Amino acid sequence: MTCYPGFLCGCRCAASRAAALHSLLKYQAAAVASPLLAGLLLPGGLQRRLVTRSRLSPAQSLLPSFAAGFPPQRLLQQGSSGSPGPGPEPSALGQQSSSGFALSRLDQRRGRSAGSAGLPCGGGFRPTRVVVVAKTTRYEFEQQRYRYAGLSEEDLKQLLALKGSNYGGLLERHYIHTKNVEHVVDSLRNEQIEVCLVKRREYDEDTVRWADAVISAGGDGTMLLAASKVFDRFKPVIGVNTDPERSEGHLCLPVRYTHSFPEALQKFYRGEFRWQWRQRIRIYLEGTGINPTPVDLHEQQLSQEQHSRAHVNGRFHDQRSEVSGPHLLPVRALNEVFIGESLSSRVNYKSCKPSFKFSLHRASYYEVSVDDGPWEKQKSSGLNVCTGTGSKAWSYNINKVATQAVEEILKIAKKHESLNLPLSGELIQKVTNEYNDSLLYSPEEPKMFFSIREPIANRVFSSSLQRGFFSKVCVRSRCWDACMVVDGGTSFEFNDGAIASILINTEDALLTVLLEE
Amino acid sequence: MTCYPGFLCGCRCAASRAAALHSLLKYQAAAVASPLLAGLLLPGGLQRRLVTRSRLSPAQSLLPSFAAGFPPQRLLQQGSSGSPGPGPEPSALGQQSSSGFALSRLDQRRGRSAGSAGLPCGGGFRPTRVVVVAKTTRYEFEQQRYRYAGLSEEDLKQLLALKGSNYGGLLERHYIHTKNVEHVVDSLRNEQIEVCLVKRREYDEDTVRWADAVISAGGDGTMLLAASKVFDRFKPVIGVNTDPERSEGHLCLPVRYTHSFPEALQKFYRGEFRWQWRQRIRIYLEGTGINPTPVDLHEQQLSQEQHSRAHVNGRFHDQRSEVSGPHLLPVRALNEVFIGESLSSRVNYKSCKPSFKFSLHRASYYEVSVDDGPWEKQKSSGLNVCTGTGSKAWSYNINKVATQAVEEILKIAKKHESLNLPLSGELIQKVTNEYNDSLLYSPEEPKMFFSIREPIANRVFSSSLQRGFFSKVCVRSRCWDACMVVDGGTSFEFNDGAIASILINTEDALLTVLLEE
Repeated sequence: MTCYPGFLCGCRCAASRAAALHSLLKYQAAAVASPLLAGLLLPGGLQRRLVTRSRLSPAQSLLPSFAAGFPPQRLLQQGSSGSPGPGPEPSALGQQSSSGFALSRLDQRRGRSAGSAGLPCGGGFRPTRVVVVAKTTRYEFEQQRYRYAGLSEEDLKQLLALKGSNYGGLLERHYIHTKNVEHVVDSLRNEQIEVCLVKRREYDEDTVRWADAVISAGGDGTMLLAASKVFDRFKPVIGVNTDPERSEGHLCLPVRYTHSFPEALQKFYRGEFRWQWRQRIRIYLEGTGINPTPVDLHEQQLSQEQHSRAHVNGRFHDQRSEVSGPHLLPVRALNEVFIGESLSSRVNYKSCKPSFKFSLHRASYYEVSVDDGPWEKQKSSGLNVCTGTGSKAWSYNINKVATQAVEEILKIAKKHESLNLPLSGELIQKVTNEYNDSLLYSPEEPKMFFSIREPIANRVFSSSLQRGFFSKVCVRSRCWDACMVVDGGTSFEFNDGAIASILINTEDALLTVLLEE
Repeated sequence: MTCYPGFLCGCRCAASRAAALHSLLKYQAAAVASPLLAGLLLPGGLQRRLVTRSRLSPAQSLLPSFAAGFPPQRLLQQGSSGSPGPGPEPSALGQQSSSGFALSRLDQRRGRSAGSAGLPCGGGFRPTRVVVVAKTTRYEFEQQRYRYAGLSEEDLKQLLALKGSNYGGLLERHYIHTKNVEHVVDSLRNEQIEVCLVKRREYDEDTVRWADAVISAGGDGTMLLAASKVFDRFKPVIGVNTDPERSEGHLCLPVRYTHSFPEALQKFYRGEFRWQWRQRIRIYLEGTGINPTPVDLHEQQLSQEQHSRAHVNGRFHDQRSEVSGPHLLPVRALNEVFIGESLSSRVNYKSCKPSFKFSLHRASYYEVSVDDGPWEKQKSSGLNVCTGTGSKAWSYNINKVATQAVEEILKIAKKHESLNLPLSGELIQKVTNEYNDSLLYSPEEPKMFFSIREPIANRVFSSSLQRGFFSKVCVRSRCWDACMVVDGGTSFEFNDGAIASILINTEDALLTVLLEE
């Protein structure tokens, strides 16, 4: 029962993928016809907003969307050429393409055609091939871990009990998730849509290239995973929350569609939805002794024994680059980029750099420059650079204020100015909400929110710059064992000597759909 | 040159310790005489404050300090009996004593006598035996790590260069530290004080028991380490900042004494200082499948290869307790107790629990009850419970507000109430400072400040309780891979099923000295 999705995915996926790679050219040919029609998908509002944001010349921005062909294409190229920050070196770009990540001309063409293969005639969206990325449940995770350790299901039960964990509860959540994934898969099949159901480990760029659309079946974490392999800005990624009672699904469809997915499909067909391009962050890494090799923080967890052994043996042979860069890193951040010390000893382990002091409040030392301004030395618990999408996630929790704090601040001000200010609970709540709402912005806006986590001020360091909206953030590491973590899932070493340029290029936007409740 | 301290410590320490253990009884006998005189050390102000804080009966608090014998003794016993929270079971206490940590009757007597051996005749303080705990510099750390990996000094130089680190800079900081340590050691020897110079690894309870006083030579981190082995509330711990230009030394003597330590000694002799009892936090752990085994997060870093191998082999044989507790944990927090997920994979590793998702913003699930109030479900990036000492450390950075935020909050309030409030930079700074100052309190106050790190509110969780001063905090873990970390140095598993009772018992206070600038 529990291995049903894995099993299904194993076989179907192999078949689908083989078929996919052979028929790719056919799709590309078939797609050439429909770029103009595809243009109809873009609601004028969104289109105009994108035009303004990507700073086209007046003449360009006045072009009617129809005459503009497939508008986002235009805009994204514009965004790209007009993007701030260093451009990747040819060598770096070459490296990107070979790893299948970069948006090279070839990838763009392939991406667009694959995308438009499923794109609508008449404003709707009718995919023919969908990859469903299913979350690994905590039950599956524990099961796989202990199976690796050669334990039986009974042993697992006992070990979980010993840990004080509830085996039955895990199983229940697992079944709920599995049932909802089955519902999505069956709904797609009933529409004669070819489905490839995969888990994290089987999910790769080939699978993405094969599909017209990607559906993430899990929570926001699974949506981030699904998005992490999609570098084609015309391939929609759609999130389904498979455990609405327990997990948040800000990036997913409204929860009602979890149990009535056929209804969502009908709305796609009829065009009763709105496309949303969520901006993403790209990172250029340069400096001495940098290592642009990404480390998958999820993958490592299951196989850490193998990992550690490997690192113990080969620990002086990591792929450290002598090139000073800038390297365009092979990831795009949908939520945020976090830079801090001692994020994960596994990462340090891989690069043979154990943490000196292992605790969350180990300070991070770095220099920061925003929008090409002067460099400022800072010391903190790390820094967060988020997108509009991420402004509702970790960044929000870092920066929001509590009513308790607002009340105390207003009381102090009132006392100092002997104000006649009635501090009603209503006012305090209003002020708190308005302040906290000011931290949120649209996922479509090509700007970043920068904030420092727990800034440390002393005679050596003073953080005048603590938060704000910027279009470019550069960070020079002064850390010993720091990581740069993208969406909590991919990590890069970021130590003394490394410089990161963090910015938004509208070319990297992720295509998602908005459905009404 | 660089190994001079280590070398010195190795030989002297062995000798001193042998001598110490043989002459312990003599000191105990010699000590019995001076408890009343010792009382003179306590300034009346501090004494009265302590009396009030530990809630003696009016009759008791009216007793003159002299008639009260050695006042702190009285108070601490009172504090102990009057302490909230569960009392440790006999079995648990037994375990504590055997591990040499608990303040058993014997330990108290031994501790007091050893302490008073160095205690003053006539208000001054003249130790005869001092243990100096020296920081391991980053240079030594790197050197040891790479030596373990079989590399030469030349290899080290190259590896650091490859990492973009400055070998010369490391060496310079190392020499500055070493020079300052030598100055302290020589100053003590010139006064015929027996010195035992140790590094982290050689520093243990025997060494502490042998000494009249402990001097930490490093920064605040080294002071926390030095304090972590001292369970005798009459044994002073004194901090010397050995790198004043670079490191903070809130817990250390004023920096001028770094270069003129003999002057500090003269002030000790003449009683030109003030004793300060810094309150510390104790933790009782209970629940199913708890593991009260502490993990030294510093030690692990250097020997992680051995560690990991050991854990891979013996990973199902940890000392997990079947007893439901409450266990009094063998540590006392001088700064804070932090509870959160994925603090360190090494810890999870040891207990065979790799982290499911490895990133700093993995949410922690738990229930909390303060001062025996109702339990509240919470979700956050962890929680921090600090002492007055710790209120100036991590807790301060978690809770302080930026002028930027205060300005925006006041602007919003002004707009809503259409106030005639001139928002001068001066007012904003005043309000900010007053709010942030309200987060600080005296290290001597037996109360704790509780705060949530990045609270997460959603339809499931609402954190009404976000911060405040309390005398008891109980936390029930709902975490998968959580740790309870004491002063950033010692970690305990804290997973689903475990309950921690966190409180201050004045018996645990740490004796330190205050010198004027």
